[in-house]
Amino acid sequence: MFSSQFKSEALVRYNKIFKALQASDADALLINTNVNIYYTAGLIFSGYIYLDKSGNLFYFVKRPVGLQGELVVYIRKPEEIPALLQEADVPMPKRIALELDYTSYSDITRIAHVFKDAEITNGSTIMRNVRATKTPYEVEKIRISAARHEAAYGHIEAMYEEGMTDFELQIEIERRLRMEGCLGIFRVAGPSMEVFMGSLLSGNNADVPSPYDFALGGSGLDESLPIGCNGTLIKQGSTVMVDLCGNFTGYMTDMSRTFSVGQIPELAHRAHATSRNIHETLRAMARPGVAAAEMYNTAYDIAAKAGLSDYFMGHTQHAGFIGHGVGIEINELPVLAPRSRDILAEGNIIAIEPKFVIPGTGAVGVENTYLVTGNGIECLTNFKEEIIPLD
Amino acid sequence: MFSSQFKSEALVRYNKIFKALQASDADALLINTNVNIYYTAGLIFSGYIYLDKSGNLFYFVKRPVGLQGELVVYIRKPEEIPALLQEADVPMPKRIALELDYTSYSDITRIAHVFKDAEITNGSTIMRNVRATKTPYEVEKIRISAARHEAAYGHIEAMYEEGMTDFELQIEIERRLRMEGCLGIFRVAGPSMEVFMGSLLSGNNADVPSPYDFALGGSGLDESLPIGCNGTLIKQGSTVMVDLCGNFTGYMTDMSRTFSVGQIPELAHRAHATSRNIHETLRAMARPGVAAAEMYNTAYDIAAKAGLSDYFMGHTQHAGFIGHGVGIEINELPVLAPRSRDILAEGNIIAIEPKFVIPGTGAVGVENTYLVTGNGIECLTNFKEEIIPLD
Repeated sequence: MFSSQFKSEALVRYNKIFKALQASDADALLINTNVNIYYTAGLIFSGYIYLDKSGNLFYFVKRPVGLQGELVVYIRKPEEIPALLQEADVPMPKRIALELDYTSYSDITRIAHVFKDAEITNGSTIMRNVRATKTPYEVEKIRISAARHEAAYGHIEAMYEEGMTDFELQIEIERRLRMEGCLGIFRVAGPSMEVFMGSLLSGNNADVPSPYDFALGGSGLDESLPIGCNGTLIKQGSTVMVDLCGNFTGYMTDMSRTFSVGQIPELAHRAHATSRNIHETLRAMARPGVAAAEMYNTAYDIAAKAGLSDYFMGHTQHAGFIGHGVGIEINELPVLAPRSRDILAEGNIIAIEPKFVIPGTGAVGVENTYLVTGNGIECLTNFKEEIIPLD
Repeated sequence: MFSSQFKSEALVRYNKIFKALQASDADALLINTNVNIYYTAGLIFSGYIYLDKSGNLFYFVKRPVGLQGELVVYIRKPEEIPALLQEADVPMPKRIALELDYTSYSDITRIAHVFKDAEITNGSTIMRNVRATKTPYEVEKIRISAARHEAAYGHIEAMYEEGMTDFELQIEIERRLRMEGCLGIFRVAGPSMEVFMGSLLSGNNADVPSPYDFALGGSGLDESLPIGCNGTLIKQGSTVMVDLCGNFTGYMTDMSRTFSVGQIPELAHRAHATSRNIHETLRAMARPGVAAAEMYNTAYDIAAKAGLSDYFMGHTQHAGFIGHGVGIEINELPVLAPRSRDILAEGNIIAIEPKFVIPGTGAVGVENTYLVTGNGIECLTNFKEEIIPLD
């Protein structure tokens, strides 16, 4: 079933999941969401992956036709699973972990009925924790995304023309990202956050609050998608913050850069410098064992001491975090927020995005994606961090 | 809270939902998904809409800040709802309908605990049925999407250059769609189907089976998103089927057209003519009261009599439907499938997509979006239906 380069990686990931299952209170884990099937199998199929504490593993596949492999069993519906386990002499689990946080109530109820004698526990937690520390294979995928993300951003300066709207500029950047191989899709865990290819914010639109839990808002082009650019003219004296999709390999990088048109106020320059200062401080303190909440508090304190709290992570509405894990999805662990209990660990990939919204001007700041190494962090998104004049 | 043009529409939709709630076995309905909040309120907020059979209505809003209106009540968490209902002298429901099909097990469990004395019923069914028949306001939104969709497709002929890959052509069409105002986002109900801006299929890639339940497959650009174009060169003697995103207004049109490069086999021409023949036949039979399954069977019979069953709705893997409702999402009711129990009703918007996959050549056929009127159906996507030569 696996591509040749994924064969050994499949085993690495299986072992990570198996260990996490061993450490949990469940006997078995049933994976059904696309992202976790992709994580575990290196490809997406419609169906279920079943693992248990005795080391049994099955890929129960509904679609596509034609997958081959020792552990592949084709099914039409989940109700066939118990008989198939029995055939294979695999005992039914007493406690089964299911993806409760990302599977609908109706689907879980159906699966629970299939394992009707088993108690249900939360497999979403298991998979979230497993995925929080990346394997070297995953880090390599993210490095490739970073390089292409950087290459696409390198074209932005040349794209701007006077009189452009935020949407017009975004369209050209989107095209360039796609030409560099961007897959376009922007995966967010859970159904409550929606975005197309990321956001580009300029002028007052940067201060429009959004229903979504992203770092910044923007009114969007339509009531049906209230986030990001809104067709506003990019005016003299405004900034343009570009935070567009870095998914080139199934693994995303998250990178924001600030551009400017004409003279922007000293406050905007000062806030941007403070964002860079926060990055520098966090780069120096981050290493395995450091609390994610401490990272947040440090960033917040720097902004406060600079007298910039009112603008930090939004102005009319403030975001409650300054960074987040990133990988297959844009909102993985750890979360850099005041009440986060996450502790940095080697292999975490985190986006850090101390941003400021300056009313009338736009957003400023830098966002980078970092790898937590054995003794520090390494920046994966290397692109000039100054405010870049477009004119 | 509502924009001025949505005020009277909000009442129309509220009445539709209220009637459906009256006809259900629930006392109250709690709406929490983005699409159903958008449907009901004309905008998206993070929070809940609560309606009951006595005519009470509340917008419990978490984000964004600043929404105003008589019925808006800001909350931080759903646990505050019972006390707020009590304050307003609204009795707690005995049976509450929740969006069980599209809300996670964890979230429903939390909400069920908030309404801990109430029995839970399925509100997803209520909302799916309400949304299946569109209001004149919605039809107007879809007409606008159709016009822009047509305008973008009008540029495709001029975009092709010899030596292009499927991906390169798709990038240029995506850009044109965006320039016409496409919102990009392609909403699919449920988390199991993923796609970026739709699909463009050429040559053998059209016959690669997909895990997703779309009409056709394609291997995609990466294992993480196995659908659509795969970077294949558009060869002489192949077709290019374009099925790209028609969401310009929050409401989508679905339209596919077939293009060709060089001479394509007679079989492909014959299958394309059969697709057009199916459209003609279904246009003549479709009206309120006709069974969706009968539409499917009629289409299937025409394909079979033409000796084309092996290629109909896929070749290596076949899709189990020939059409579907469309609106805010791409997979609404009714479903045109053999075991569908849906009956066409005035106000349904349906995409009909009889397609054929010709091995070695690509996909052929036409997809249009239709409005079911009082006595027939009206085609909303009017664009030439012949196979259009690109060279």
